[in-house]
Amino acid sequence: MRNINKKKVDAAILIIGNEILSGRTQDLNVSFLSDWLNKRCGISVEEVRVIPDVELKIVKNILDLKRRFNYVFTTGGIGPTHDDITAKSLSRAFKTKYEYHKEAYSILENYYGRARFNDGRKKMAKMPRGSSLIYNPVSAAPGFIIKNVICLPGVPSILRSMIDNVKKYLVKGKIILNKSIRLYTIESNISKELTIIQRKYKKKIDIGSYPFFRLGRIGVSVVLRSSNKKNLESCLLEIKKMVKKKENKNI
Amino acid sequence: MRNINKKKVDAAILIIGNEILSGRTQDLNVSFLSDWLNKRCGISVEEVRVIPDVELKIVKNILDLKRRFNYVFTTGGIGPTHDDITAKSLSRAFKTKYEYHKEAYSILENYYGRARFNDGRKKMAKMPRGSSLIYNPVSAAPGFIIKNVICLPGVPSILRSMIDNVKKYLVKGKIILNKSIRLYTIESNISKELTIIQRKYKKKIDIGSYPFFRLGRIGVSVVLRSSNKKNLESCLLEIKKMVKKKENKNI
Repeated sequence: MRNINKKKVDAAILIIGNEILSGRTQDLNVSFLSDWLNKRCGISVEEVRVIPDVELKIVKNILDLKRRFNYVFTTGGIGPTHDDITAKSLSRAFKTKYEYHKEAYSILENYYGRARFNDGRKKMAKMPRGSSLIYNPVSAAPGFIIKNVICLPGVPSILRSMIDNVKKYLVKGKIILNKSIRLYTIESNISKELTIIQRKYKKKIDIGSYPFFRLGRIGVSVVLRSSNKKNLESCLLEIKKMVKKKENKNI
Repeated sequence: MRNINKKKVDAAILIIGNEILSGRTQDLNVSFLSDWLNKRCGISVEEVRVIPDVELKIVKNILDLKRRFNYVFTTGGIGPTHDDITAKSLSRAFKTKYEYHKEAYSILENYYGRARFNDGRKKMAKMPRGSSLIYNPVSAAPGFIIKNVICLPGVPSILRSMIDNVKKYLVKGKIILNKSIRLYTIESNISKELTIIQRKYKKKIDIGSYPFFRLGRIGVSVVLRSSNKKNLESCLLEIKKMVKKKENKNI
């Protein structure tokens, strides 16, 4: 794990699951997690990977990402079935024992009742030694954090119900603000002017432009991102002026 | 690029775009592309990455992925604005000139008309020397393929309109079939039995189990994937029998 510089805390997301890779399931966790981390914690997601449920691949990716980013969030693979191997793989990556977490065990035993606490359910209490729990208000089975890796479930509604319980483990960064403006023009009409404005605000503001098609109209969303509100506002003003000038010229 | 073994042709997807990483935009291309590659071409997507619009990162990821997979599909970053740097980055990765593609240039010049063919629009005709075009029936600006890397736009509707034009460039693999069964039970109720069945069909069938919540009911989708139809059917039958036995026992 890299030392944390509070001005810029970053993270990667590792989606573990054949169902996403095969196209069967539409991932919904990346956009939710990125947005939540940005807005609530000032943490910027810098890379996402989707990989299959294969132990060696999980280990390799965890070792790479945990070194390069302040935090790594995994989703998926912490359920009761044979293809749920995230916790075991993490034990291997961190070279620590894969064992019952005492509190997790008792949470799950309570939830299911001793008679129905079968092997599959017990498996959900197994995690790398030294993990801390992330409580799950919906279906009991907890996520966990070990070092800078936070393991969450793949089912979006459960992940969302647990996310506030992650907050206390994270060092917060500077929150990135954004402003956006929707222009009903073609991207290539304003590309030259945007390039000039981006050069002027180099490193201060990140300007993105995203074409869209909506109800038969085409347009461009221009999105400005920065941690400095003043810069953001003056840059937005400049873009608005540029657009007005173009409109007056009827271009 | 690895030599192609027609029994198993694989691919990676590289999503290039800050808007996906920031959570602002929900990616829709991974599930579409994976599904299309699977069903139409017998190509299995084995890894997905989402990275920012940063040249060095694009180059690094392309060099890594193009070596490890038969094909790499990129989405995003081939428009007219300053943040569209996919083509330039690919030239750098392949150490080849970044220059006007003659045919792309004339397609775009025709589309916009000479008077409106400004620098931003001209930029969309620039690509790595040696690229072949992927025609775009919606908005003219073509994608391209260089070696085993296929560059497509980020806007889902445009990507979809172009996808059939990619087909002729791809070596097809064996198509992976799948069967799925929806069970209204909890995953941990059937995890032991599924493990036994998965062991029996080891390497022949890939069994996944995915919990879902729908209209207040919980359940599990069990998905079987294999290129062998017979194995698939006998495995499905075994799962159905197992479920029936469980139901009779009222578990």
